[in-house]
Amino acid sequence: MATQTTRILGIDPGSHHMGIGCVEKTGNKLRLLFCEILHAPKNDTLYDRLEIIGGRFQKVLQDLRPDTVAVEDIFFAKNVRSAIYLGTARGMAIGACLSQGLKIHEYAPTLVKSVVTGHGRSDKVQVQKMVQLILGTRIELGFDATDAVAVAICHANHLDRDRMVRRLST
Amino acid sequence: MATQTTRILGIDPGSHHMGIGCVEKTGNKLRLLFCEILHAPKNDTLYDRLEIIGGRFQKVLQDLRPDTVAVEDIFFAKNVRSAIYLGTARGMAIGACLSQGLKIHEYAPTLVKSVVTGHGRSDKVQVQKMVQLILGTRIELGFDATDAVAVAICHANHLDRDRMVRRLST
Repeated sequence: MATQTTRILGIDPGSHHMGIGCVEKTGNKLRLLFCEILHAPKNDTLYDRLEIIGGRFQKVLQDLRPDTVAVEDIFFAKNVRSAIYLGTARGMAIGACLSQGLKIHEYAPTLVKSVVTGHGRSDKVQVQKMVQLILGTRIELGFDATDAVAVAICHANHLDRDRMVRRLST
Repeated sequence: MATQTTRILGIDPGSHHMGIGCVEKTGNKLRLLFCEILHAPKNDTLYDRLEIIGGRFQKVLQDLRPDTVAVEDIFFAKNVRSAIYLGTARGMAIGACLSQGLKIHEYAPTLVKSVVTGHGRSDKVQVQKMVQLILGTRIELGFDATDAVAVAICHANHLDRDRMVRRLST
């Protein structure tokens, strides 16, 4: 039986910087396919920033053609204003994925860290090192891209669990 | 000289209900072209709701082909969680408009009320009555649709001002 390959896109949304990371899972193997941090000029208005980041995000989505999408759940922000800005950037990315018929999977930040490093309160450097180790790469991904790749790895891990549950229940 | 017609789409975003209203401005005349409140089942997950509302929103956008888009600026929400949900719904709608090359214009809620009723602290019933009066309709639009139409009217009003400023400065 041919081993199934699943392409997972992880997103770390933001209206100034948006991290995207794509991993491919074949059997037990995970491979880093692509990652990038999309930037928008700091002094641009929210809509100008969203236009720049959104345009690039759409292009990446069309090029990568992922099978599924994973995103971190957000529980907190500095204030309501930041939460709305963060939500707006997140909504733009999610809307683009939904319009391509993709399913979105959401994971709490502590679960993502727990899956990647074994501890839900690891710092950014620890997450970065473990992501490099899991994917067998020494490339410094940058924190926003690392977070995006980490949530994709977390979803890859849950795919196994879901398959096992399905096998046991049939 | 032929009088220019501008089609303005107003949006009142929400992840449970999204109000959309489209007005057409020709010279000094405003005409209500379309309005609808998009609903999603209350108990669905955020992503299921966004999928339903986003799918219908894309369809309306393609059918209406507006020239420009107006949306209310958000300053407050019950809490950070609500702000993120509200921002996510708003980002999805804005992303869809930006991907069609549309410009987004943002107005503070007090300015919208001020333009429509003459007072920045009017209640929803007063806004609804004035929107009906301005557009010469007796149709009960529903509050979410009224808010969407109101922000479109506010933008129509600002188009005049912008044109006047351009005329004076040339």
